[in-house]
Amino acid sequence: MAPMGDVPVVDAMRYASAGGKRLRAFLVLESARLHGIGPEQAIWAAAAVEALHAYSLVHDDLPCMDDDDLRRGLPTVHRQWDEATAVLAGDALQSLAFELLSRPEMGEAQQRADLVLGMARAVGAQGMVLGQALDIAAETADTPLTLAQITELQAGKTGALIEWSATVGPVMAGADVAPLRAYSRALGLAFQIADDILDVEGDAETVGKAVGKDAEAGKATFVSLLGLEGAKARAQALIDEACQALAPYAEEAETLREAARFVISRQS
Amino acid sequence: MAPMGDVPVVDAMRYASAGGKRLRAFLVLESARLHGIGPEQAIWAAAAVEALHAYSLVHDDLPCMDDDDLRRGLPTVHRQWDEATAVLAGDALQSLAFELLSRPEMGEAQQRADLVLGMARAVGAQGMVLGQALDIAAETADTPLTLAQITELQAGKTGALIEWSATVGPVMAGADVAPLRAYSRALGLAFQIADDILDVEGDAETVGKAVGKDAEAGKATFVSLLGLEGAKARAQALIDEACQALAPYAEEAETLREAARFVISRQS
Repeated sequence: MAPMGDVPVVDAMRYASAGGKRLRAFLVLESARLHGIGPEQAIWAAAAVEALHAYSLVHDDLPCMDDDDLRRGLPTVHRQWDEATAVLAGDALQSLAFELLSRPEMGEAQQRADLVLGMARAVGAQGMVLGQALDIAAETADTPLTLAQITELQAGKTGALIEWSATVGPVMAGADVAPLRAYSRALGLAFQIADDILDVEGDAETVGKAVGKDAEAGKATFVSLLGLEGAKARAQALIDEACQALAPYAEEAETLREAARFVISRQS
Repeated sequence: MAPMGDVPVVDAMRYASAGGKRLRAFLVLESARLHGIGPEQAIWAAAAVEALHAYSLVHDDLPCMDDDDLRRGLPTVHRQWDEATAVLAGDALQSLAFELLSRPEMGEAQQRADLVLGMARAVGAQGMVLGQALDIAAETADTPLTLAQITELQAGKTGALIEWSATVGPVMAGADVAPLRAYSRALGLAFQIADDILDVEGDAETVGKAVGKDAEAGKATFVSLLGLEGAKARAQALIDEACQALAPYAEEAETLREAARFVISRQS
């Protein structure tokens, strides 16, 4: 039975899930805490969103997509193993996300079903996958994207899952999602602008992935459209907006405000 | 905004979901009906399992996996569009499956959460993805697989999702899953043996995909291990077993028995 156990998929899933900033898990845990939901329960949703995010990175790095060799300072999954393993590990990480999210430990069935539905919508053809598809289409488009188009693209590609993460708490508690939704929309966009700035200002070793790719490919980014200083000013304005949206939580939300400030000061 | 709407992912999802035998959807609807659950409710689970199945076919057909050009008589998604579109369409079909399954129309939250958990386990790294990974590993293994190993592989690759489909009814009704579980395990294995027989006896036009690939690749199959007549006898015995497992449902389950007989008489 030797060859039967010998599949690298689970190792690849573990490898792909290691490292990273854990921003989405942090948002889940903090938004849960603000609504009186402890980590013993919210940890399942936090693990789910990191599994989902890891799947998206593994597939985005594939040769037929962004064709990246380096991720979080290590070879990408298809470089460490092969393309088949990367496709399968990504596929299974997506399944794992929904498995973790629907476990009984996560909470009442109603909450679990609501969170599954929300995540599925955030990551599918109207959310994350749409964003990635638009990103790929933009590479071969005749004219560079406009600011409105890049904003729409990023709302799908990274924004939807960040919003899902930050609203886990009110969804589980049956509370108003509006403040955390406003926070996370501004945060998600600022996060992406910061990514574009890092692609220009960062070095590959610190960032943990290739930099300068966008400019090289002649791709429109927030930096190419707004200029470096304009992009920084826009990111700062969005962070201010995100912090103000947290007003209903008063000082209880200070950690989320710090996270927002971190997002635009980070080096990786 | 012209290039923004211009992504083929949704078209590719629709294309990949068309056609096929709809065996899994049929099993969902019949098992629901046996437990007094009507199609207006079970249709969501039936659509979900077909979306899930379509995703698995699109990814299995990729060049880095089975590298197939033909599926259900038409070019595979990566041949019709490109690899990036095939990866993304498969990814979004998996998300769509979980979205459909967790919709409020599907039933009580408890049922939805149970079905999501069951499907996620059936298709992840301990189920369908494991089966596909074992299948790929077998192609480069030093020795051909044994009968026990092929049986284990198929239990993951096709068996787990067929079992999930056939047990939707009792899961939703909170009833005993044992009879339909026994039925679907025998059915799933018989289905795969029939597939191996078709790969030898069928012609590509009727089957709708390439045939003779396994023998050409020197892959162990149920036919290579049991012989053609032995494989047919084994499939027949499994169908008898599947039909007997339905005894508790008496004549109410006659349609499921007919489906089992169809599985080994089909030409595609």
